[in-house]
Amino acid sequence: MLQAALKSGAAHRHSFFEVFTRRLPAGRRYGVLAGTGRFLEGLKNFKFEKEELDFLANTHVVNDETLEYLSNFSFSGNIFGYAEGEVYFPHSPVLQVESTFAEACVLETFILSILNYDSAVASAASRMSLAAGNRPCLEMGSRRAHEEAAVAAARAAIICGFTGTSNLEAGRRYGLNTIGTSAHAFTLLHDTERDAFQAQLDSLGVDTTLLVDTYDVEKAVRLAVELAGPELGGVRLDSGDLVAQATWVRRLLDELGNTKTKITVTSDLDEYAIASLAAAPVNSYGVGTKLVTGSGAPTSSMVYKVVARENDEGVMEPVAKASTGKVSYGGRKYAVRKINEQGRATAEVIGVDAKAPSDSNDRDLMVDFVKDGKILEGFTGAEGVRRAAERHARSIAELPRAASRLSEGEPVIPSQFI
Amino acid sequence: MLQAALKSGAAHRHSFFEVFTRRLPAGRRYGVLAGTGRFLEGLKNFKFEKEELDFLANTHVVNDETLEYLSNFSFSGNIFGYAEGEVYFPHSPVLQVESTFAEACVLETFILSILNYDSAVASAASRMSLAAGNRPCLEMGSRRAHEEAAVAAARAAIICGFTGTSNLEAGRRYGLNTIGTSAHAFTLLHDTERDAFQAQLDSLGVDTTLLVDTYDVEKAVRLAVELAGPELGGVRLDSGDLVAQATWVRRLLDELGNTKTKITVTSDLDEYAIASLAAAPVNSYGVGTKLVTGSGAPTSSMVYKVVARENDEGVMEPVAKASTGKVSYGGRKYAVRKINEQGRATAEVIGVDAKAPSDSNDRDLMVDFVKDGKILEGFTGAEGVRRAAERHARSIAELPRAASRLSEGEPVIPSQFI
Repeated sequence: MLQAALKSGAAHRHSFFEVFTRRLPAGRRYGVLAGTGRFLEGLKNFKFEKEELDFLANTHVVNDETLEYLSNFSFSGNIFGYAEGEVYFPHSPVLQVESTFAEACVLETFILSILNYDSAVASAASRMSLAAGNRPCLEMGSRRAHEEAAVAAARAAIICGFTGTSNLEAGRRYGLNTIGTSAHAFTLLHDTERDAFQAQLDSLGVDTTLLVDTYDVEKAVRLAVELAGPELGGVRLDSGDLVAQATWVRRLLDELGNTKTKITVTSDLDEYAIASLAAAPVNSYGVGTKLVTGSGAPTSSMVYKVVARENDEGVMEPVAKASTGKVSYGGRKYAVRKINEQGRATAEVIGVDAKAPSDSNDRDLMVDFVKDGKILEGFTGAEGVRRAAERHARSIAELPRAASRLSEGEPVIPSQFI
Repeated sequence: MLQAALKSGAAHRHSFFEVFTRRLPAGRRYGVLAGTGRFLEGLKNFKFEKEELDFLANTHVVNDETLEYLSNFSFSGNIFGYAEGEVYFPHSPVLQVESTFAEACVLETFILSILNYDSAVASAASRMSLAAGNRPCLEMGSRRAHEEAAVAAARAAIICGFTGTSNLEAGRRYGLNTIGTSAHAFTLLHDTERDAFQAQLDSLGVDTTLLVDTYDVEKAVRLAVELAGPELGGVRLDSGDLVAQATWVRRLLDELGNTKTKITVTSDLDEYAIASLAAAPVNSYGVGTKLVTGSGAPTSSMVYKVVARENDEGVMEPVAKASTGKVSYGGRKYAVRKINEQGRATAEVIGVDAKAPSDSNDRDLMVDFVKDGKILEGFTGAEGVRRAAERHARSIAELPRAASRLSEGEPVIPSQFI
C-alpha cells in the first residue's frame, strides 16, 4: 500500500484516520480503552533499523523509493483520542491520527495491536473489579499469555482497579504494586507440609499467605495456625468448591482464634465466579487466565479507518466504504459524554466534522496526545498508568448502575451521531 | 518461593518438572505444541540484568541472598520434551525440566507463557489448514493480538501449514514467506477506485490482488479486468456472503476471460467458515482475528508441575498434589505414540518412571533439547520453524481421519498411563 501510494503521489495527502469498534463483545455494557500510553511510549522510538531495512531490501518486499521513505520515517502529525482508562461504546473515536496517508499507514498495525489487546484485558478487568466490590483483585495471569502480552495485561488490570500484580517486569516498567504467592510445587518440594510452611514463615514472616490445599485442607489450616500463631497473614484456597470451602475455613480460623487471618481464593476465576463468591467470607481474589484472555473476548474488534483525506485540489473530503450491514461514517468525529444533573452519563454524543453541542455538565472526551510529532507529557510510564487508573475510576462512577450488571444486555448508554 | 527455598536449603534439591495439559479445549480432537524454539532462543540469554536486580532490591521484593542467586543465574540442567509441531493429547509431557528446584522455579512463567500462547495459535491454525485442504491459508491477524504476540502467532501459523504471513517482523526473524494486501483505506485515499487500482497495478504489476468491495463489487471486478487485463493476479473479497459472492465473481471473471485470476477471501474467517467455503470457487483464505486468538481457546491450559524431587537423603521421590477431580501422577513421564501396521496412530502411551514398551512401528516422542545447560542444535531460528513444520505435517498425516472433524468430540487417540 505504501509503495503504490508513494508512486501515485497520494501517500503525501493529508489524511484523518480513526480507531473505533462497531460493537462491544456480545452482551457487554461498556468497554474500557487501554494501551494509549504504551502506544505513545513506542511512538517515541518508532523508526526502522538497519536490520529491518536490510530484510525488506533483500527479500524485495518493497522498492528503493519505499526503503528510502522508511529509512527517514518519523511521525510528524497529530494524535487525539479518549484518555486512557476511559470507558467507550460502539463508534467512540478512541484514537485519531492526522498526518500524511503514508505516516498513518505505517502506524496502523502497531496502534491496533496495542489497543485491541490492552482494551480487551482492561474491559474484562473492569467487570471483575466491579463484581469484587471492595475486595481486592490481584493479577496472576502471566503464565497464560504471551510473555510480553503478560506485561501489558498486568498494566491494564491495574488501570482497571486491580490492586497488585505478580508480574515483576510490569512492576519495574510501570511502578506497579507487586505481589507473589507460593505454588503447590513449593509444598511438594519439601519432605513435609510442616517443613514447607516453616520455610516460608522463616523467610517471609507470619504475615505471609500459606497455600493450604496441597494435601488435606483442614490439617493444613490447623498446621498453619500452629506454626504461625494468631498473626498469620492469610491462607490461599486454589481448588474445589470455593464458596463452601471458604465458609468452613473461615469458621475454623475463627475457632482457632485467627480472626484476622485472611482468605485468598484463586482457581480460574472470572467476573461470574467472583460475583458468586460475594456472600462467601473471602478477603481477596487472585485472577489469572480469564483476565489475560479478556474473559471470552480476547481482542476488542477495533478497526482503523480513514475517514477524511485531501482530494486532488488539496481540499479535505470525508470518505467511507460502502458496506452492507456496517455503519460507516466519513468525516472527523468529536465525542462528548452527556451527563445529567445527577452526574450520571446518559449518552455518547458523536459529532461528525463538528463538535457536538454540550451543556455545562457534559464532558468533552477528546484529548490531545501528539502535536506536530511531539508527544505531550503525562501519558506514558508510571504517571500514565496512575492517571489512567484515576480516569477509569471516575468514568465508571459516572455510568448508570446497570453498568455493573453481568447479564448480557445493551451498551449502558447509547451512541448518538449528530 | 525462591527466597524461602534458598533459606530452607531445599532450593538446591534435584527436581523434575513437567509441562502438560489435563484436557484439550472443549471438543478439540488434538492439540499442537508450539513455542519450544522460542523458549530455547530466550533461554540462551536468560539472565537478570542490573536494572531488574535494582528493581527487586529497591522494592525489597526479595532479600540479599536471593538477589545474589539471581545475579549469577544461568540454567545448568536438562530439558526434554515433544518436538515442536508435534500433536499432543491430555497428559502428554510436552516439556520437562530437570535441574535444581531453584532453576526450574525461575523458568516457570517464561516457559508457560510461551507454550500456552503459541500452542493455542498452532492448534487453531492446524484445524484451519485441515479445513482448507489444498487451498493456501495466509496469516493476517497481527492487528488483533499484542504486538509481540503477533510475531509468535505468525510463526505458529506457518508451523501448522499456513503458507505466508503479513507480519514482516516474523518474516525477518524466522525466514518466513511474507505476503501483503491493500486495505479499503488505499482505495478511499484515491479520488476514484480507478485511480487506486491503477496506482497499485503501476507499482506492483498485474499479478497483484485488487480489493474489490470498497464500493460496488461488480463494477470493481469489471474495472480491475479492464485495467489489468487477463493476467490480473487476483481479487479479494472482504465482506458480505462470501459463498454467494465468490460464486458470481468467479462466473464474472470467467466471462470476462480472466479464468486464471484468483479469488482470495477474508473477513473474520475461522475453521468453520473455511469449511463452509469448501465448495465455493475460492483460491485462498486470509485469516486474522480467530487465528491469533486461538479460535475460541486463547490459551492452552498448560501447567508446570513438579513430579519428582530429591528427599532429605538425596534420593529422588515422585510427588503429586492430592486433588479432587484432577488426575495427577507423580514421577517422570516417557511418552510413545503407538502406531499400527497401517501407519496410523492409535494411542498416546505414557510410562511413569519407565519407558513405555514399544513395537517397531511406535514412535518415541521424547527429544533432548538441553544437556547440562547447553542448548542442542537445530531447534531455534529459521531452522527450528522449518523442522517444526515438517514434524507437524508428518504427525497430522499419521492421525486417524477423525482428527479433521470440526464437530466436538473426544481426543482422536486416548492417553494411556502404564
